[in-house]
Amino acid sequence: MKLLLLNPNTSTDVTHLMMGVGQRAAASGTELVPCTATRGVPYIATRTEAQIGGAIALEMLAERHTKVDAAIIAAFGDPGVFAARETFDIPVVGMAEAAMLTACMAGRRFAIVTFAQALGPWYEECVRDHGLWERCAGIRMLDAPFQAISEVGTEKEDLLVALAQRAIVEDEADVLIFAGAPLSGLAERVADRIPVPVVDQVVAAVKQAEALVALRLRKATAGTFRRPAAKPTIGLADALAARLEHRDS
Amino acid sequence: MKLLLLNPNTSTDVTHLMMGVGQRAAASGTELVPCTATRGVPYIATRTEAQIGGAIALEMLAERHTKVDAAIIAAFGDPGVFAARETFDIPVVGMAEAAMLTACMAGRRFAIVTFAQALGPWYEECVRDHGLWERCAGIRMLDAPFQAISEVGTEKEDLLVALAQRAIVEDEADVLIFAGAPLSGLAERVADRIPVPVVDQVVAAVKQAEALVALRLRKATAGTFRRPAAKPTIGLADALAARLEHRDS
Amino acid sequence: MKLLLLNPNTSTDVTHLMMGVGQRAAASGTELVPCTATRGVPYIATRTEAQIGGAIALEMLAERHTKVDAAIIAAFGDPGVFAARETFDIPVVGMAEAAMLTACMAGRRFAIVTFAQALGPWYEECVRDHGLWERCAGIRMLDAPFQAISEVGTEKEDLLVALAQRAIVEDEADVLIFAGAPLSGLAERVADRIPVPVVDQVVAAVKQAEALVALRLRKATAGTFRRPAAKPTIGLADALAARLEHRDS
Amino acid sequence: MKLLLLNPNTSTDVTHLMMGVGQRAAASGTELVPCTATRGVPYIATRTEAQIGGAIALEMLAERHTKVDAAIIAAFGDPGVFAARETFDIPVVGMAEAAMLTACMAGRRFAIVTFAQALGPWYEECVRDHGLWERCAGIRMLDAPFQAISEVGTEKEDLLVALAQRAIVEDEADVLIFAGAPLSGLAERVADRIPVPVVDQVVAAVKQAEALVALRLRKATAGTFRRPAAKPTIGLADALAARLEHRDS
Amino acid sequence: MKLLLLNPNTSTDVTHLMMGVGQRAAASGTELVPCTATRGVPYIATRTEAQIGGAIALEMLAERHTKVDAAIIAAFGDPGVFAARETFDIPVVGMAEAAMLTACMAGRRFAIVTFAQALGPWYEECVRDHGLWERCAGIRMLDAPFQAISEVGTEKEDLLVALAQRAIVEDEADVLIFAGAPLSGLAERVADRIPVPVVDQVVAAVKQAEALVALRLRKATAGTFRRPAAKPTIGLADALAARLEHRDS
Amino acid sequence: MKLLLLNPNTSTDVTHLMMGVGQRAAASGTELVPCTATRGVPYIATRTEAQIGGAIALEMLAERHTKVDAAIIAAFGDPGVFAARETFDIPVVGMAEAAMLTACMAGRRFAIVTFAQALGPWYEECVRDHGLWERCAGIRMLDAPFQAISEVGTEKEDLLVALAQRAIVEDEADVLIFAGAPLSGLAERVADRIPVPVVDQVVAAVKQAEALVALRLRKATAGTFRRPAAKPTIGLADALAARLEHRDS
Repeated sequence: MKLLLLNPNTSTDVTHLMMGVGQRAAASGTELVPCTATRGVPYIATRTEAQIGGAIALEMLAERHTKVDAAIIAAFGDPGVFAARETFDIPVVGMAEAAMLTACMAGRRFAIVTFAQALGPWYEECVRDHGLWERCAGIRMLDAPFQAISEVGTEKEDLLVALAQRAIVEDEADVLIFAGAPLSGLAERVADRIPVPVVDQVVAAVKQAEALVALRLRKATAGTFRRPAAKPTIGLADALAARLEHRDS
Repeated sequence: MKLLLLNPNTSTDVTHLMMGVGQRAAASGTELVPCTATRGVPYIATRTEAQIGGAIALEMLAERHTKVDAAIIAAFGDPGVFAARETFDIPVVGMAEAAMLTACMAGRRFAIVTFAQALGPWYEECVRDHGLWERCAGIRMLDAPFQAISEVGTEKEDLLVALAQRAIVEDEADVLIFAGAPLSGLAERVADRIPVPVVDQVVAAVKQAEALVALRLRKATAGTFRRPAAKPTIGLADALAARLEHRDS
Repeated sequence: MKLLLLNPNTSTDVTHLMMGVGQRAAASGTELVPCTATRGVPYIATRTEAQIGGAIALEMLAERHTKVDAAIIAAFGDPGVFAARETFDIPVVGMAEAAMLTACMAGRRFAIVTFAQALGPWYEECVRDHGLWERCAGIRMLDAPFQAISEVGTEKEDLLVALAQRAIVEDEADVLIFAGAPLSGLAERVADRIPVPVVDQVVAAVKQAEALVALRLRKATAGTFRRPAAKPTIGLADALAARLEHRDS
Repeated sequence: MKLLLLNPNTSTDVTHLMMGVGQRAAASGTELVPCTATRGVPYIATRTEAQIGGAIALEMLAERHTKVDAAIIAAFGDPGVFAARETFDIPVVGMAEAAMLTACMAGRRFAIVTFAQALGPWYEECVRDHGLWERCAGIRMLDAPFQAISEVGTEKEDLLVALAQRAIVEDEADVLIFAGAPLSGLAERVADRIPVPVVDQVVAAVKQAEALVALRLRKATAGTFRRPAAKPTIGLADALAARLEHRDS
Repeated sequence: MKLLLLNPNTSTDVTHLMMGVGQRAAASGTELVPCTATRGVPYIATRTEAQIGGAIALEMLAERHTKVDAAIIAAFGDPGVFAARETFDIPVVGMAEAAMLTACMAGRRFAIVTFAQALGPWYEECVRDHGLWERCAGIRMLDAPFQAISEVGTEKEDLLVALAQRAIVEDEADVLIFAGAPLSGLAERVADRIPVPVVDQVVAAVKQAEALVALRLRKATAGTFRRPAAKPTIGLADALAARLEHRDS
Repeated sequence: MKLLLLNPNTSTDVTHLMMGVGQRAAASGTELVPCTATRGVPYIATRTEAQIGGAIALEMLAERHTKVDAAIIAAFGDPGVFAARETFDIPVVGMAEAAMLTACMAGRRFAIVTFAQALGPWYEECVRDHGLWERCAGIRMLDAPFQAISEVGTEKEDLLVALAQRAIVEDEADVLIFAGAPLSGLAERVADRIPVPVVDQVVAAVKQAEALVALRLRKATAGTFRRPAAKPTIGLADALAARLEHRDS
């Protein structure tokens, strides 16, 4: 099967990082197809960037959805995931969603640890949007500048581990999630320094996308995720406009 | 004071309709400044259209925010409102938010009545995003095609009143909101046929924007609605890019 | 329009303070009509005082409701507001309710800061009664005696600002409300020392009452806020008894 | 032990009815002391009447609290119960509270069935105030006039049983509560026609008051139910004023 | 009346301790009948032990339920209580349930204080299972080894009081519960060192069981606590198997 | 990898049915190892049977956990799953949990459809225990006797499909789950008659167990799912006793 690893950020280095982690975890027979946003911001971190980045994710999906079996919105925070699930026929999974739902099977409450203060409010809204706030022990963020976005996981490794350890003790977390695309792969490197299970967001997303494909779920034609009726559009990216106007099928 | 009445849809007829209702309700000294999206869809009705429309609303605000005292996102569902509140310095109010919060002062639970089935799931998510689900008695939608979007309130007037009456009896609503920009002004026409207070979404939005200006609220420099730090962008609309990159001040 | 500024406490100094703040914020054409309780306590601070003060507020409204267009229950905690909304035909808004709902349009979570420990539990119940606990970042109270109730806002200004600053940092508040009638006007004086928007309770209440009048809401004849049926009474204040027995219309 | 059966309504017939039911259920050694409001309304049914009736209940308690070991606020809806618990030293239990908490030990969800449409909204707020909404299967009300308030339980017996049966089937209730002082004693008469346990409100209140006395609970001097500090009052009933001003001890 | 005091743990010393406390609080005419598990663990402290202990409690009840008027599951955490209530005809009350529901009548929020770290997560799940988390101020646990389980209340008395005092100040508790069967009787000894009401779990359980018997509640034949239909079993304890197969009646 | 498919019921036919469905969905390299309870009931359907069946599941796991990489509690309702996750070192996933969490990635709200009235209350408690009630559109049950438990899915196929269709229309479900081990495999047979995605519980459980193994999660040594300390036991099954007493490692 082919899984689109859709990075709605413009950082190809981060896409590369996630591809490495994801491909190692994929089942034999699963091919990850990377794509990186060509417009937007290097890494989405605020409500505003998520609003824009989610729309860009839809443009990217509109161009590629027919060529893959499922797609991963590969930014923690899941910009555009509910819209994508509504508009396209293939399964679409958010990286935050995949990590959180998987974490639920490894304990009662998961903690989220990330590398920048700015990400906290957006992540909190993401947890709430998925109805999982009750299962979240808390969100903890580093508060210091970093060098390169794609290497923040290496640069801040010790600080992130320390933050994780505090989340476990002070927030009573049973499971840990390192959140934010640049932290992909960190779980594996530091698992033995953290006394609870650590869920890697990319691995979780790949396995969940594989699960959805294995279930051979049909596209809804009823309920709130049926494809919206055709509607005229003005000034939108070509493939997305075609999809919304039902000119693509 | 000047209030931007920002219609993130492309229907100028609907903008015109809202301007009429809004201007009649405005205080002396309040000037409504209309603007209508030049790209997007005629009327936002789904998660996908809200994702895109919210991003378009940000583009529109980026061009005009320095010329007004506050802005109204004049689409029930409030596409982009939290992002706008974060990124711009002026008060920004959503039309759904204004109607719902106002309705809270007229009863325990408000019902939302609208003209199209497709709007229901999006509106429900909007109510939940504002943390007001507990105050919502229910959402009821007509389920029949209509002629022209800007005249659906006239065409379906009797059916909408009947739906409102059912919401009051069956859902135990204390207050009623006719939701969706094309229904602006309907409240006034049918108030005497509905046995509970009816809140007009445009009137509520204008009065709430006036209230926020009267309070002379400062832009947050702390909390989750402080302006995000500057960040490089690629391929975004000029004014919005300038705002995100802090090249505008 | 005429708005009744109903102080259910017996402190005329505090009424005077609120009148000054409120009148400055009122639209041209809005006249505030003050009234102060002639029985009760100097300032309501507990469940017991709210139970009694709410009943007194109803007596006061029964005497004056026909002479004004709307009424403000001008005590944070809103004693009697739901009962008043049920029994009288004019819009009635609580000062806490107005401040909190307005604050919701300026951020995700508001903090409440007040001048006395005793007020905390009552305020918490008030926030919950309005269904807004999810939007409340927390309630913080000073814990020291003060000189005169009507001047506590001046006497404790620096301590209150410090408490507000802590609420923002430690409770992650986006908006601030100084709560308690004696703190009216404080927002304006200290806004530039507090890094988030500060909502003044009296200004909010005046603007919300103006909004409700502008909406020309009808009195409910259905739902849970319709006027209760006539019922015989014994030993109640004359005007209130007349209202409850439907002898007044 | 002596238990005050405090009827905040003016209907002595209803007090008499409750005394009969309560005394039969009391342990040997428990004496019920009746008192009936001498001002107020025949039966509290709305937010307004509860606001006033709760204040009257406080006046009544202020006159009698030193002569009994505990008190029952003997109106379903519990007017004034939290205020009373705060201001007086003896245990005070609400009749609704007692019935609902007891019902929780007999099933997952209890249904409330009562005799008048007007009572529904007030009862719902009461259930929510006690934090028990999740345990409530629903509230059902008859909707027809009745002859004498103290005999409504006999007059409508068959209709009330039918309503109870519907609540069990349609609302999935595990336990039933006939609510409203005039329905005291109904449980015993109809228990064999209802297929789930039926909790009598007066019996529950008497047994819960006995339990609280048996526990020999001290009056709180910390927490939110410690006695409020002394405060000057104007124009309140003598005994209540003395209690609030700490002139009584 | 006869009340079964069913200790699902194997510690007869703890049964003895609870019998002493319970018998002193029982009404004249109430006889407590003790029974102690003959298989299982000395004291249940985890989800696993509760899963097993709850099944053992059912075996114990199956042997004795016809000889008593009601039963108390005398382990805080209430292993098996919902199952027991479903399968047997007599009232069954959990010790945690009884303590918490009683505490609700003495304040807004109760704190739970116990003697071992391991008990916290199980107790939290118990509070949530009863739908009372909103009424719980927090759970605090000692974190040190102890000598004998039946004497931990004496050994750690001062530490437990100190923990209770912290819960009141830091968690804003109105009522206190010492939780865990070995702490039975502690409330009485230390009540004067704790500034809020302290509910003894055994006393509460005895009084609540007496209340349920006094209400003469019938066994449900509808709702979710009706007796399950007969079903064949393999390898279960004799009396329990007979009960499940309806061979016992 | 080896996955234990643990049926805590005594119906080997149902185990056989699940093995067929599960093995077809398993990745190459995944081997399902079946085991069926040798004591208990044919199919768990009530709180009581879940209490007992969960304890039996622990006994079964104690005997086999070292020989597999992960385990599935293969009864919808997940008896014993939290206890198992606490006590054993391998990942353990419940069949209901797996189905529900997977369904969350295919829509906003899932409906649960099952074959017997008795299962409803237990399933509701299961959904709540997992904190997913907000994501559940409702639970619908057939209400008629059936022939053989392992063939109820075939016998009632049309009725179950009709019930599913009603859940989608009336409960606004986005996703459907046929719940109860005997309905395994039904999803595939009827997917084209149901207009939303249908999640098969066994397929979901197998894929989720594979995902947890792929994540190589460590056993917690902190948090609430660390292995409980050793404790003496009496009269428990040998392997389980050894595990609880730490005699097994």
